[in-house]
Amino acid sequence: MTTSSPLDSDISMPLGMDVDALPTPCLLLDEGRVRRNVDRMKARLAGLGVTFRPHLKTAKCLEVARIAMTTPGGPAMVSTLREAAFFAQGGVMDMIYGVGIAPGKLDRVGAIRRQWGVDLALILDSLDQADAVAAWVKANGDPLPVLIEVDADGHRSGITPGDEALLVAIGRRLVDGGAALRGVLLHAGDSYRLDQADAIADAAEVERMAGVAAADALRRAALPCPMVSVGSTPTARFARSLAGVTEVRAGVFMLGDLFQMGVGTCALEDIAVSVLSTVIGHQRQKGWIIVDAGWMALSRDRGTARQAVDQGYGIVCDLDGKPYGDLIVLDANQEHGIVAVRPGSTASLPDLPLDARVRILPNHACATGAQHDRYHVLDAAGRVAAAWPRINGW
Amino acid sequence: MTTSSPLDSDISMPLGMDVDALPTPCLLLDEGRVRRNVDRMKARLAGLGVTFRPHLKTAKCLEVARIAMTTPGGPAMVSTLREAAFFAQGGVMDMIYGVGIAPGKLDRVGAIRRQWGVDLALILDSLDQADAVAAWVKANGDPLPVLIEVDADGHRSGITPGDEALLVAIGRRLVDGGAALRGVLLHAGDSYRLDQADAIADAAEVERMAGVAAADALRRAALPCPMVSVGSTPTARFARSLAGVTEVRAGVFMLGDLFQMGVGTCALEDIAVSVLSTVIGHQRQKGWIIVDAGWMALSRDRGTARQAVDQGYGIVCDLDGKPYGDLIVLDANQEHGIVAVRPGSTASLPDLPLDARVRILPNHACATGAQHDRYHVLDAAGRVAAAWPRINGW
Repeated sequence: MTTSSPLDSDISMPLGMDVDALPTPCLLLDEGRVRRNVDRMKARLAGLGVTFRPHLKTAKCLEVARIAMTTPGGPAMVSTLREAAFFAQGGVMDMIYGVGIAPGKLDRVGAIRRQWGVDLALILDSLDQADAVAAWVKANGDPLPVLIEVDADGHRSGITPGDEALLVAIGRRLVDGGAALRGVLLHAGDSYRLDQADAIADAAEVERMAGVAAADALRRAALPCPMVSVGSTPTARFARSLAGVTEVRAGVFMLGDLFQMGVGTCALEDIAVSVLSTVIGHQRQKGWIIVDAGWMALSRDRGTARQAVDQGYGIVCDLDGKPYGDLIVLDANQEHGIVAVRPGSTASLPDLPLDARVRILPNHACATGAQHDRYHVLDAAGRVAAAWPRINGW
Repeated sequence: MTTSSPLDSDISMPLGMDVDALPTPCLLLDEGRVRRNVDRMKARLAGLGVTFRPHLKTAKCLEVARIAMTTPGGPAMVSTLREAAFFAQGGVMDMIYGVGIAPGKLDRVGAIRRQWGVDLALILDSLDQADAVAAWVKANGDPLPVLIEVDADGHRSGITPGDEALLVAIGRRLVDGGAALRGVLLHAGDSYRLDQADAIADAAEVERMAGVAAADALRRAALPCPMVSVGSTPTARFARSLAGVTEVRAGVFMLGDLFQMGVGTCALEDIAVSVLSTVIGHQRQKGWIIVDAGWMALSRDRGTARQAVDQGYGIVCDLDGKPYGDLIVLDANQEHGIVAVRPGSTASLPDLPLDARVRILPNHACATGAQHDRYHVLDAAGRVAAAWPRINGW
């Protein structure tokens, strides 16, 4: 299919086309790499004896979700209620909404559960939230499933590990209020700051032990705790043991990115997402090549700036995905990327004339993906096999 | 109008509603402030005797464009060809596409010009581009209007000021090839690094003088140069003289943001855009309030980190837009904002309970806006008067 309107000329592209014919900038997805990344994670977690609950917030895409999930109905994790509704519509029946619930959002949660008959569970970390859920359950007759969030590493949300009094009080309030207490949930977000497998494995052990201890505390109080849910891409990749854990969540590993490469969870060859861009100019005396992927297409994420190797706004590759030696996006304006050899490198600038095309590996797949409304999916021959929509927004 | 699907529950909201009833996170626009910002800029530029060509890349919104433009047909500036087509469809007939043209994009440029009969002009800075334009004009019979970009301050693209040989050669190549040489275009992008009115006025003078000199060189070579187009929000705000300049471009001033406040082009009370967010939790022992606006809603832009006052991911205000004392978004994850008192401040954390709503003033209106597909427009009474769509993507 093609389209006649210049406004929508980027919406529907003929399939089986050469990647070189896509309008730029746009987002490419290497389906083979996604499958390889997923297969590796599934095999690893199956070997550790736990359920895999992929986090869909990175890809935000039904087709990628179907590759990642262990069944077409889930389980899965989402980061927005818009994702929850979208994936429910797509047949995903078992989801956790992974952001602490605000009472004002319960009606929408209930509507999603009702409309698609989906098992959408919530997380929370306070008595106030538990009371609000109990009141909602009483008013609506829908026994909302809830996990109590425990803050394994002081990263963000969740009750303090070891605060058994609060944990049990929340659990009791939920159960007495008619909600379905599902268990505990933890996210070792601080593992993103690490870059050594041993240190990440230690972080995974901290996450696991906090989860197991919380579950034990609930069970000692005669409260149900069928689930102990942990996860992050780094801890899922390097955990030594998951004894006592029932499920692991991870998301960004499906696509990979330069930040995760810096953490050590993937190799450059695993990164499945890239931004296709066109050379639009040169500043030869400065050693700059100007491309049409600025921060609008790459995102403002500069996560690698705090890592051992600063990748600028991304690593520049040829159309086959092979990096040019030490070529990065040194800086970015809204619609301009400034491509140059990495500072300190003695590599020479490749000869990339006007209209030449490059692929840029991004710092952060979650952030770069969000700048685009779809993936152009590459098959094994490097041709565009499909366009897969993303569900952005809230 | 309301909607029945939980998937689309955020798409169409009843108008005249209380802002407190909007789903969060979402983007708010204070129409009165936009009009005030625009009126001030129009008065200033009229006083300096130049045409105003608003840059539409910040707002990416037809309704805002109509407030900003001096006529419903333009002139205007755009940053993507998707914007060009969108605004052409909306009746804007005079536009410059402000990113150096790649030859592979000329067919799409031609299609937009043809379909809507719009005067869409291009910019370029090399003989290769001029040759490609000339070849396209010859093949298609459409005398594309072109401005030659001059790099006033070494910021990005454009020919070096004073390189008259190259300037004239490009101009001659265009004219001989049948293109319509419109003049020269400059953008003092490095003015964003400044924060003193005098220094910005000096940068504006550098921009002006480079433009006037380039125009003189073209005219001495008997080439046409009807337009000398300059601009950036800082230089538009502080230029002392615009003698010899025919038009000024500026965009972000319409909405304002914390980065521009740091540069000195706007006051906090001028910032027309904010992200509405809900309190979803607390980490009281750390002095943190957790809100549902993370970097996905605020963008990853941390531009103020390099300014005198680092605003984190934004300044937190009440529903009337009044800042809580020294309260900022200290850090952000994808869907979590960590709100705290500014480091070093002795202010106390306000009591914001679960479900409380705040408005967050962003670092960068262009980047934050791009995370959203529409503005919820506030009227003078602070109620939601309209939803104005944005044209994101390429």
